[in-house]
Amino acid sequence: MDHNLDNIIAPATPVGAGAVGIIRLSGSDVITIADTVFSPAANARKKSANLKATDSYKMVFGKIQENSHLIDECLAAVFRAPNSYTGENCVEFYTHASSYIMEKVQMMLIDSAAKLFKSKKISAKLRIAEPGEFTQRAFLNGKMDLAQAEAVADLIASETESSHDIAINQLRGDFSKELRDVRSSLLSLCSLIELELDFNEEDVEFADRKKLSNLLSATYVKIKDLADSFALGNVIKNGIPVAIVGAVNTGKSTLLNLILGEERAIVSPIQGTTRDTIEDNLNIGGTMFRFIDTAGIRNTTQTIEIMGIERTWQKLKESSVIILMLDSTREESFLPSITTIADRFDKKRQRLIIVANKQDKSKADPKETETTIKAICKKLKLSDVKILATSLKKDRQSAKQTIESHLADIGKSFAKNLQGKTYVTNLRHYQALKMAQESIERVFDGIDSNLPTDLLAQDLRQATDDLGSIIGEISSQDILSNIFSHFCIGK
Amino acid sequence: MDHNLDNIIAPATPVGAGAVGIIRLSGSDVITIADTVFSPAANARKKSANLKATDSYKMVFGKIQENSHLIDECLAAVFRAPNSYTGENCVEFYTHASSYIMEKVQMMLIDSAAKLFKSKKISAKLRIAEPGEFTQRAFLNGKMDLAQAEAVADLIASETESSHDIAINQLRGDFSKELRDVRSSLLSLCSLIELELDFNEEDVEFADRKKLSNLLSATYVKIKDLADSFALGNVIKNGIPVAIVGAVNTGKSTLLNLILGEERAIVSPIQGTTRDTIEDNLNIGGTMFRFIDTAGIRNTTQTIEIMGIERTWQKLKESSVIILMLDSTREESFLPSITTIADRFDKKRQRLIIVANKQDKSKADPKETETTIKAICKKLKLSDVKILATSLKKDRQSAKQTIESHLADIGKSFAKNLQGKTYVTNLRHYQALKMAQESIERVFDGIDSNLPTDLLAQDLRQATDDLGSIIGEISSQDILSNIFSHFCIGK
Repeated sequence: MDHNLDNIIAPATPVGAGAVGIIRLSGSDVITIADTVFSPAANARKKSANLKATDSYKMVFGKIQENSHLIDECLAAVFRAPNSYTGENCVEFYTHASSYIMEKVQMMLIDSAAKLFKSKKISAKLRIAEPGEFTQRAFLNGKMDLAQAEAVADLIASETESSHDIAINQLRGDFSKELRDVRSSLLSLCSLIELELDFNEEDVEFADRKKLSNLLSATYVKIKDLADSFALGNVIKNGIPVAIVGAVNTGKSTLLNLILGEERAIVSPIQGTTRDTIEDNLNIGGTMFRFIDTAGIRNTTQTIEIMGIERTWQKLKESSVIILMLDSTREESFLPSITTIADRFDKKRQRLIIVANKQDKSKADPKETETTIKAICKKLKLSDVKILATSLKKDRQSAKQTIESHLADIGKSFAKNLQGKTYVTNLRHYQALKMAQESIERVFDGIDSNLPTDLLAQDLRQATDDLGSIIGEISSQDILSNIFSHFCIGK
Repeated sequence: MDHNLDNIIAPATPVGAGAVGIIRLSGSDVITIADTVFSPAANARKKSANLKATDSYKMVFGKIQENSHLIDECLAAVFRAPNSYTGENCVEFYTHASSYIMEKVQMMLIDSAAKLFKSKKISAKLRIAEPGEFTQRAFLNGKMDLAQAEAVADLIASETESSHDIAINQLRGDFSKELRDVRSSLLSLCSLIELELDFNEEDVEFADRKKLSNLLSATYVKIKDLADSFALGNVIKNGIPVAIVGAVNTGKSTLLNLILGEERAIVSPIQGTTRDTIEDNLNIGGTMFRFIDTAGIRNTTQTIEIMGIERTWQKLKESSVIILMLDSTREESFLPSITTIADRFDKKRQRLIIVANKQDKSKADPKETETTIKAICKKLKLSDVKILATSLKKDRQSAKQTIESHLADIGKSFAKNLQGKTYVTNLRHYQALKMAQESIERVFDGIDSNLPTDLLAQDLRQATDDLGSIIGEISSQDILSNIFSHFCIGK
């Protein structure tokens, strides 16, 4: 029997203390199954004797009973195919969110379905849904394409405005539409080139190779732009990586504790691969920032001045924002420190904040220090640097506010770069786009080196398949399983 | 302005990874407020332009937008007063369960309500609900009495069949009905006695004191039974306390790890008042067992044989099930050990399991050991003792199964004692019943010592008030605040 013909069930709400828990069923027999445990209350029954007789999208108050033993009083709703989330018949129970009730009701429904199946009253059993199986069915039943289905998981996981906006645009189908347009241009080119192929033996060349190359160029640029958007899209989705660097005793850990310390309670610490590496995420101004390898910085005495070790360079390379800490009392260290950063700085991708600390002990006043630093930056051709001379000891709150507002600005400018554009945040999509991009590059090479048309056609076809795999027009069960296994149960 | 006239909002589902999150609103203006952020989708709009035009209990698919920026696509439902959970107008949104969406939508609704309130389009603002405030309103609006409202919190927290059944019976109103009956008998007696009071100066004695005493007796017994049921009801609700006791090296910690060890993952460890005391709860056969002071047992070398310290006696007294561990190789220790328990054993309330361990090293075979122990129990007039001679080292699994099945039997017999009966599980109810009981005892004393009628009437009136406080017919804001502060937000 086809696995996808089973009736499925799962809780749709998180487990934990809460008022309401939702139990969700999908499949052709779920209304029949649900009616074996649920009976509408007397006043609701006037209108409908059971769920079968209840209108779609109508909530009914009633009882869930095992024999005559009351399990819960709750609401239930029926959503009939195809006007449901999955496109199949669906039933939802809105019960009290007790772990006992949630489990008991699911067990009762599964047992009841087994009996109905045994007596051949329904065509398939009821089983616990696999992660993402409801959404997978929505995809298989044409309610959404694959990129939209993936956006559902991203949407649920979104904790900031930026990551939410990315996910909801993808869910709404903006990204899918753009891909479809690009793919359809490629398909036209494919047809053209394959038409030529059909007549190849007669040595007819329909498509002017030069013209083909031009037509392909526009499509290539779109694909490359989408692939390139991943670098930023991914950063916005997973948190903009920030590295705090500087010589020993410049106040790196003080700054880190200042930014993260008081916010700890609402921060989720992500355990890295090694016990030493703890990354802290923090939502500043609607954008998630990821302070990378902070434990490392906290515990180490490494300095970029005296020890340019590989780890620090790697950290710098991975980050989109670098906060360089300087010691205001050691003006002679400014130039070498900033030069070290400037040598490795990627202006296109990275932003720099320079914090000159210990201003309370400095001979120069903050204004003078900032001017000195500004001059060095100018000399090193570092533009758009945010500079703050302060004392993290004396001016804790104002320093914190200024740095956070710098970060918030950077977050907004990153988000602004994405505004109105479609961009890629999903590694699978990025890889498929990269493959399509490479296939088209091979076509260009082929045109240049006068490769036979059938080889060009093959690469073009490959590119359309790569794009098709993103929205699920070309997909294998393996790909689907892999995608949906990352969903939560019940979605 | 009356605090209770505010419109309130809260998430009704637990926070965490899940498919659906519910945001719940209650108050007279909530439909107007909800309509400012939600618009039904085109196909749904054919039927209803907004939530105001939507039938109660009808789920509508639509969009939540901030200006024209899409926040979520979700379902919404309206429940109009008085046919809602709170008895007021209610709206629920069934959104994607992202923390961003849940917070954003609440903020949008609160902001929007503030604007409506400012322009006098609604009569009250919208604010985050206090814990239990939805249920408190249901109580204040007469949708349920106070004991039923308290049962809602118990129902949500219920993790086992036993605790669930207690809560749902109370929610259904069985307990309330019984209390009302008792209270109404008391009120009749009050009327009778107060009638006499009115005519007192004329020295008329309507109520025969003897007859009054008899009438009161029946009521008194009912109240006392209810109060007495707390001992067992509370144990069932919070977990039947089990103490494992025995001399050094009899295998107490081995048994504890055997029972709890493999189940640890699904067990919730409750931190006690001191760091040393960890209680482990375990659901065995639908009943929760609470293994008390287990860390203490694990770390200590105290023995009940050689050191009858206060702590162990206290532990014994608190427990409903005692598991006494014996060393099969030391038959001479059986009598003193069992005697120690028998001296302090409460047959009415407690159950005893005796496990003779190290049977693999014993000269006597298990059967013989069990016979010896049975004889000692008989001699000490300990009936209904479950006895097992085993080796926790050699027969781990069978020993575990036997002991768990003994515990499951005990759990069932405890639950059976409660079956069909109404019983008290709530400390507040117990205290009120105790107070009523004592008031009536004073009436009895008064009758015996020929106290004047007005003093009798005063105590009787006090008893009816005590009972009334349980179902909320007599209640103060303090009591209400205290009760509902223990609820989760959103219920």
